[in-house]
Amino acid sequence: MNYKMMGRLLSLILATEAVFMLPALGISLADGSNSVTWAFLISMAVILAVAALLALFSRGAQRGFFAKEGLFCVGISWVFMSVFGSLPFWISREIPSFVDALFEMVSGFTTTGASVVPNVEGLSRGIIYWRSFSHWVGGMGVLVFLLALVPLSGKNEGFTMHLLRAESPGPNVGKLVPKMRQTAAVLYITYFALTVLNVIFLLAGGMSLFESVCTAFGTAGTGGFGIKNDSMASYSPYIQNVCTVFMLLFGVNFSIYYLIILRRFREVLGDEELRLYVGVVLGSILLITLNIRNLYSSVGESLRHAAFQVSSIITTTGFATTDFDLWPSFSKGILLILMVIGACAGSTGGGLKCARVLLILKGIRRNMAQVLKPQKVEVIRVNKKNVEEKILAGTNAYLCAYVVIMVVSFLLVSVDGFSVITNFSAVLSCFNNIGPGFDAVGPVCNFSIYSPFSKIVLIINMLAGRLEIFPILVLFSGSAWKRKRNG
Amino acid sequence: MNYKMMGRLLSLILATEAVFMLPALGISLADGSNSVTWAFLISMAVILAVAALLALFSRGAQRGFFAKEGLFCVGISWVFMSVFGSLPFWISREIPSFVDALFEMVSGFTTTGASVVPNVEGLSRGIIYWRSFSHWVGGMGVLVFLLALVPLSGKNEGFTMHLLRAESPGPNVGKLVPKMRQTAAVLYITYFALTVLNVIFLLAGGMSLFESVCTAFGTAGTGGFGIKNDSMASYSPYIQNVCTVFMLLFGVNFSIYYLIILRRFREVLGDEELRLYVGVVLGSILLITLNIRNLYSSVGESLRHAAFQVSSIITTTGFATTDFDLWPSFSKGILLILMVIGACAGSTGGGLKCARVLLILKGIRRNMAQVLKPQKVEVIRVNKKNVEEKILAGTNAYLCAYVVIMVVSFLLVSVDGFSVITNFSAVLSCFNNIGPGFDAVGPVCNFSIYSPFSKIVLIINMLAGRLEIFPILVLFSGSAWKRKRNG
Repeated sequence: MNYKMMGRLLSLILATEAVFMLPALGISLADGSNSVTWAFLISMAVILAVAALLALFSRGAQRGFFAKEGLFCVGISWVFMSVFGSLPFWISREIPSFVDALFEMVSGFTTTGASVVPNVEGLSRGIIYWRSFSHWVGGMGVLVFLLALVPLSGKNEGFTMHLLRAESPGPNVGKLVPKMRQTAAVLYITYFALTVLNVIFLLAGGMSLFESVCTAFGTAGTGGFGIKNDSMASYSPYIQNVCTVFMLLFGVNFSIYYLIILRRFREVLGDEELRLYVGVVLGSILLITLNIRNLYSSVGESLRHAAFQVSSIITTTGFATTDFDLWPSFSKGILLILMVIGACAGSTGGGLKCARVLLILKGIRRNMAQVLKPQKVEVIRVNKKNVEEKILAGTNAYLCAYVVIMVVSFLLVSVDGFSVITNFSAVLSCFNNIGPGFDAVGPVCNFSIYSPFSKIVLIINMLAGRLEIFPILVLFSGSAWKRKRNG
Repeated sequence: MNYKMMGRLLSLILATEAVFMLPALGISLADGSNSVTWAFLISMAVILAVAALLALFSRGAQRGFFAKEGLFCVGISWVFMSVFGSLPFWISREIPSFVDALFEMVSGFTTTGASVVPNVEGLSRGIIYWRSFSHWVGGMGVLVFLLALVPLSGKNEGFTMHLLRAESPGPNVGKLVPKMRQTAAVLYITYFALTVLNVIFLLAGGMSLFESVCTAFGTAGTGGFGIKNDSMASYSPYIQNVCTVFMLLFGVNFSIYYLIILRRFREVLGDEELRLYVGVVLGSILLITLNIRNLYSSVGESLRHAAFQVSSIITTTGFATTDFDLWPSFSKGILLILMVIGACAGSTGGGLKCARVLLILKGIRRNMAQVLKPQKVEVIRVNKKNVEEKILAGTNAYLCAYVVIMVVSFLLVSVDGFSVITNFSAVLSCFNNIGPGFDAVGPVCNFSIYSPFSKIVLIINMLAGRLEIFPILVLFSGSAWKRKRNG
């Protein structure tokens, strides 16, 4: 393992995190909330000190990474970021337990949005800002951000590629432009532009700047931390509809926006993942609207709630305008399934991702065909391109790992004794980075009910879900920690 | 498609079914229950008439089948068997609705044991016998039975192989002895001997012959239809323990018994699937006993209930000695997971099968290793033999199809509006051929609550679960029905 290079990266990430805390510090200063100001100052001092130590240790680091080290590095970076990022919550005593503070921070960075804070409106604005901002930076990835800014790798494309691959969601991460660094920059510029657009639309609806920015962070990262106890329920229909549209936009593969900029509309319309995503969204909205039409005063209102909740769940944002735990079980069933499907690959959303669902469905169809005609060899094609067998096998293996992790986590969390649907939806919600579940972790409840042990299980779930399992599994693998390796 | 050969097989299967009804007819005659006697007589007449017509149509059938036709044939045979087998229930008006009668019959043949009959003790003994017997013949398979008796294929081993493969559970069906027909015979002889042994042990506990035979049928087929409304709760601890042991025995791969007869004990002890099965059973019993120790008067009683329920669920039998829906959610969580794991391949049990779970787990471990060291090629070994990549890919594809079918069925059944856990566990229970679920389909409830539409979905689930998906999927595939095919 190239420990020095890893140290250098960690040092850079921590320094970036400290810089990211500046706006929250400013807000706390302006609000005159001294304890929070001090909390941010102390946290920043600790983070910078650790970053400096790491920088000292990693002097003379040699560039160059292997796939394993890329995964390991991304995994460990996220753990560091989360632990140090949770310091302000804990030091300010706004979240007194450290496990709770860590849960909240991991929930933020992984864009889950599951909260242990019973009264969000009682938090200081600096803390709320930091909490929401973590969604924004976690959505696209801190390493991707760093790669866009700093020429970390010199001319070593492989190194950057390994990191980007490990941090970005989806079965097959490609380059938009020939260089990885430029790809990262294009991604972040698009992301930034869409977020600004979102803020403008929210401001037009009469939201304050602070609320707009925080809400846009939660939407852009498909995170779901709100600033109100009732999430989005008390906002006007206009604001809710703006959120619906932007949640859906942030759930689209960002390479689609690049294609739109390049005016390659034919490719956009023909994109099979996009078609699946739009199809599932429209179908689900239609079915749920029909199913809940008697619960609200008009079809329009049912449609608005259905569209909002479908967008919120499939993009794994987790905002809510209504307590969907009270909906009929057919609608709840659809939402449960959307939780698993998730958004598009290469977006900020979580879940299995539409691209994987597409590959899995095509794989089943091929398997059927092969059972019928064993001698015929069929190649799976997506967007008119052949899919490598390696990617297909990887996708199937991913689903298997996904199921096994779900099962083990569900069992561990069950020890606390809550209902089966509470435990199942809690794990599903954390692992797919959604936020709310059903029953005791429904949209009007929160995760504070769980024991510290279960919270740690859910923390690992959130990280594994955001980083797509392997970077976190690597941290648990003994062989990855060994010093000398030829891999 | 070789329709004539298929017609010949169907004709033979129906004739066998009519013969199988003779004992039930005898019991009804002895009991003097005229309506049931007539129901069996009419059913047998109808079945034999259809069988004769099929035999006429299929004169001059040429031997020879392809893989596709093997699957198709098994799928269609089970549909025919179930439809005609449900006639006595329906004609005798003991189960007045035809969909209900079909549900009960499919539940019997697929060894699910989910019932729509609220008062089992109100059924005639002839009907109860037929219901329980369907477990026995469905457990090992009617085609396997037929193959053991009739030299259907002449010297065409491939033909027999395709049928056996399609009807027998597990990722990789092998031969015990060089000839498939002898393999089928060895399987049925072992099965018969174990069932007789079971009856003897039950008789020793003071059960009547009728009760012993019916209970042994339910145990041997890992079916779960009981003869009492409270399943096994009112029987003595001795009887319950006998059931526990035999359920576990019938959940073992039958090739293990063949190895024992051949005194190849080293291979038996080293069998990785058996080890996983025993390990999961013992671990689950231990955890559940600890978890429920305060619910019963003594640790011994907790242990007895835990052992019974664990054996009943992992072998997918579905007997119950206590209402496990009232157990703490940790125990319920374990049972839910056991439902999915299921028994060993090559047994009469359902579920994913331990062999598949083993392959999936080894696949994940290899995938991890490959992520760490991409250039190293690793071969997965089970019982010291290399596993073909084809079987591995097939197993992963199976899990994917399994998940997709679960999701779709869950959604369709949700339309009825019962709780999420009811619907989820109903689908899980039917698809894995278990019987009871949780909540409104828990061990003290039954499936009569569902609408006819949902019942049909669950019927398809039971068949797909028993025949391991593909024979049933083939029936829904348009191309399989086409007349000419080179496949």
